[in-house]
Amino acid sequence: MRVLFIGDVMAEPGLRVVSLHLPDIRDQYDLVIANGENAAKGKGLDRRSYRILREAGVDLVSLGNHAWDHKEVYELLEREPVVRALNYPPGTPGRGWWRLDAGGESLLFVQVMGRVFMDPLDDPFRTLDALLAQEKADYVLVEVHAEATSEKMALAHYLDGRVTAVLGTHTHVPTLDAMRLPKGTLYQTDVGMTGTYASIIGGEVETFLARFLTGRPQPFRAAQGRARFHATELVLEGGKGVSIGPYVWEEP
Amino acid sequence: MRVLFIGDVMAEPGLRVVSLHLPDIRDQYDLVIANGENAAKGKGLDRRSYRILREAGVDLVSLGNHAWDHKEVYELLEREPVVRALNYPPGTPGRGWWRLDAGGESLLFVQVMGRVFMDPLDDPFRTLDALLAQEKADYVLVEVHAEATSEKMALAHYLDGRVTAVLGTHTHVPTLDAMRLPKGTLYQTDVGMTGTYASIIGGEVETFLARFLTGRPQPFRAAQGRARFHATELVLEGGKGVSIGPYVWEEP
Amino acid sequence: MRVLFIGDVMAEPGLRVVSLHLPDIRDQYDLVIANGENAAKGKGLDRRSYRILREAGVDLVSLGNHAWDHKEVYELLEREPVVRALNYPPGTPGRGWWRLDAGGESLLFVQVMGRVFMDPLDDPFRTLDALLAQEKADYVLVEVHAEATSEKMALAHYLDGRVTAVLGTHTHVPTLDAMRLPKGTLYQTDVGMTGTYASIIGGEVETFLARFLTGRPQPFRAAQGRARFHATELVLEGGKGVSIGPYVWEEP
Amino acid sequence: MRVLFIGDVMAEPGLRVVSLHLPDIRDQYDLVIANGENAAKGKGLDRRSYRILREAGVDLVSLGNHAWDHKEVYELLEREPVVRALNYPPGTPGRGWWRLDAGGESLLFVQVMGRVFMDPLDDPFRTLDALLAQEKADYVLVEVHAEATSEKMALAHYLDGRVTAVLGTHTHVPTLDAMRLPKGTLYQTDVGMTGTYASIIGGEVETFLARFLTGRPQPFRAAQGRARFHATELVLEGGKGVSIGPYVWEEP
Ligand SMILES: [Fe+2]
Ligand SMILES: [Fe+2]
Ligand SMILES: [Fe+2]
Ligand SMILES: [Fe+2]
Ligand SMILES: [Fe+2]
Ligand SMILES: [Fe+2]
Ligand SMILES: [Fe+2]
Ligand SMILES: [Fe+2]
Repeated sequence: MRVLFIGDVMAEPGLRVVSLHLPDIRDQYDLVIANGENAAKGKGLDRRSYRILREAGVDLVSLGNHAWDHKEVYELLEREPVVRALNYPPGTPGRGWWRLDAGGESLLFVQVMGRVFMDPLDDPFRTLDALLAQEKADYVLVEVHAEATSEKMALAHYLDGRVTAVLGTHTHVPTLDAMRLPKGTLYQTDVGMTGTYASIIGGEVETFLARFLTGRPQPFRAAQGRARFHATELVLEGGKGVSIGPYVWEEP
Repeated sequence: MRVLFIGDVMAEPGLRVVSLHLPDIRDQYDLVIANGENAAKGKGLDRRSYRILREAGVDLVSLGNHAWDHKEVYELLEREPVVRALNYPPGTPGRGWWRLDAGGESLLFVQVMGRVFMDPLDDPFRTLDALLAQEKADYVLVEVHAEATSEKMALAHYLDGRVTAVLGTHTHVPTLDAMRLPKGTLYQTDVGMTGTYASIIGGEVETFLARFLTGRPQPFRAAQGRARFHATELVLEGGKGVSIGPYVWEEP
Repeated sequence: MRVLFIGDVMAEPGLRVVSLHLPDIRDQYDLVIANGENAAKGKGLDRRSYRILREAGVDLVSLGNHAWDHKEVYELLEREPVVRALNYPPGTPGRGWWRLDAGGESLLFVQVMGRVFMDPLDDPFRTLDALLAQEKADYVLVEVHAEATSEKMALAHYLDGRVTAVLGTHTHVPTLDAMRLPKGTLYQTDVGMTGTYASIIGGEVETFLARFLTGRPQPFRAAQGRARFHATELVLEGGKGVSIGPYVWEEP
Repeated sequence: MRVLFIGDVMAEPGLRVVSLHLPDIRDQYDLVIANGENAAKGKGLDRRSYRILREAGVDLVSLGNHAWDHKEVYELLEREPVVRALNYPPGTPGRGWWRLDAGGESLLFVQVMGRVFMDPLDDPFRTLDALLAQEKADYVLVEVHAEATSEKMALAHYLDGRVTAVLGTHTHVPTLDAMRLPKGTLYQTDVGMTGTYASIIGGEVETFLARFLTGRPQPFRAAQGRARFHATELVLEGGKGVSIGPYVWEEP
């Protein structure tokens, strides 16, 4: 099974590059998952951005700390293959995992959110234990949406040998550490953003920089330049992860 | 001028891989700078680890938030080419920049520390402005020791066109985003750690993981496995940055 | 000189209780200063709330981290006796101190903001040193708008013997520690909020509680019940602080 | 039933003032509980400080984020009436609640820790729900060891009408807001520290101040001056809270 995971799709440039490029390579993958927490102009996921991702060939859209920025997400979480972090408290709308099937094999996808330098959700370690005790699949892919590299790696080692792959998101910067952990789990600290890299994590340089220089709130505006498509490609076979590596493409 | 910047050298595995590999490639570079804030068993820089780095061919050692973990650093900061962050308050022992010469050209090296999710030092933006107004060199290399990707990129765009290169450190994870910014400055969000990657940012998996699982303090122990050498190579010519790219080598 | 400092005036209940009570006691004080960072429905200061405070007898309005929540504050900072934190970077609109005169004596009022668990502004310690070296008055009153009790007390001891009084704000909870520090400066960790105490720091219980229970963003609404007027009374004489104590009044 | 809750007993001055004063007033109370997280020189609870508290008349000792600073606490948690926060993960040594009896009535004491500006423990809201569904008593007293005033008040309103009293600790500053909440629960945001108030939250001024001025780590030393005894007195009758108020005594 070949799986492509597309990192945080950021605003129009992110949607554009996904629409432009994904259809060309879609048939090389059995499943395509994309993080869409910033798809709606940087703030959450709305019907339009969800539709664009799906039409380009994405099977499942995950969220993150920006999950609730756009109110249309509630409707999407109810009806569509959209996943928010699993470690929100019980009663939270939507769900934290999804089962996908391809070629007679199943993939369990789960997202958890970190807590270091982020909001205090439920313990992602024990929340994952509970899910993994209950749901089985041929492959398990865990997305760790987190800020601190230590927490991402701690979760990865905790899951090592128990899940097929752990992929980090949220920092909007791809990492050069795709690897196999000692007990076989594939891992990368961050898939990176799909959007404009001549930016501050996808935000317009001028206004974002002004926050740091003035210490006063500034409007958020997404950057508008040439976009890069940043994804991670996973090859899974015989119940195991075979390979992991970044997949990058840039707008001409 | 060819410059090699070695990312956070972590404990014995980091020192070992630098000793093992750097001498073999030293003559390909005019200058070698290493971040040594974790060289002394993960906590600061002591005389011994400083000596090992220097004997392997490092010209200048920078620090970070772990600068003060080992008391021998005070003596090193006084006598040796060792640099702590520039944006500590006036009166802080040591210095935040250093001028290196090679082949008739000069390189000004500066380190600043970020403030997002870190301690509240002086404003790194204005601190850099003041230094750059005063010190001139053929090339300027700024190390941004920071946690948040947004702050690192904000500093890089702020300096774009004014300095030759901006390299991030501190997260211990190398990033796959070495690039030229719009006005010509070379940039990479994080050089990555030089140490054991089968670890939690260089710490022993078992004890570091226990912090997350128990919520109680645990002893820090550096991981001891096979090490990776993670550096960034800069080619600088005619007063400008020509290329930037990761340099990686792993122990056999 | 008798000075009344009114703690963070919160939304309509805060404005109402100031209008209701301050005129009755105004003639007992030479100067009245109020923190107005939450006067405009909890979010900043607008022309209307500023006008209400002034008409009730307030001489000077200070702000805080909510300073920039309402855009009318820029106009007020330009024309009126309104003060934002002094340790914003140079070039910030408005000013961080104000001189008031009463009965032939002068009072220098300054606000600084803390940095622990707050945004990274300039160092409040050195910023105050610079101001105090330059501006002189018969009495100096410093408002420390900060979260952490340690930082407030550190600033107070740093200023002990150099300023007449240090009063904390921002937590919206009055403290029972009004005291004279060893070298004579009067001090209280927090003056407390002027607003509805059957609330969560002035916010409506239901919606504010939902943030903690759901981990998702919720609309902010100010609480609407019976308000308490919370101020600190300072008696200053012969260039020194004579007494400090809370002044509390509750709506009938 | 009359209950005295003594706020964070800080180092030798705290132990001394408890030994000096508590025996004189002990017979006015049915139960005495003290927070002892800082009793051992400011860092945790050891056998000696525990013994001193008990011999002075304390029935039960609670902890906080400093619970694990001294290793003797593990033995105390196993054998003695000592309570750590309830919302540590399952498997944490010790327990988060204790039942005390006096005059034929029972009091359930529980401690929870906040998560805002603190470490990410389990959700204190749901953890309390689970305990309250299971354990019954004539009176329930909840200690909220937390930094943010908003989180303390949110917990108090959440428990309003379901528990007898909610008392905050941790900031080391007593608050002037002892009150009855709308549904009858008694509440105070912070009981305050029992120790030396001419200090920075109980720490020696010189060394603690140096942290803020230098941005570098400094040794922790407890302040050594005249101590204040800061407690909150609760009168409980007929299954309800009758009154709440601070009890303060200062060394001569
Ligand atoms: Fe995110
Ligand atoms: Fe994102
Ligand atoms: Fe660091
Ligand atoms: Fe480091
Ligand atoms: Fe505030
Ligand atoms: Fe406020
Ligand atoms: Fe505490
Ligand atoms: Fe404490």
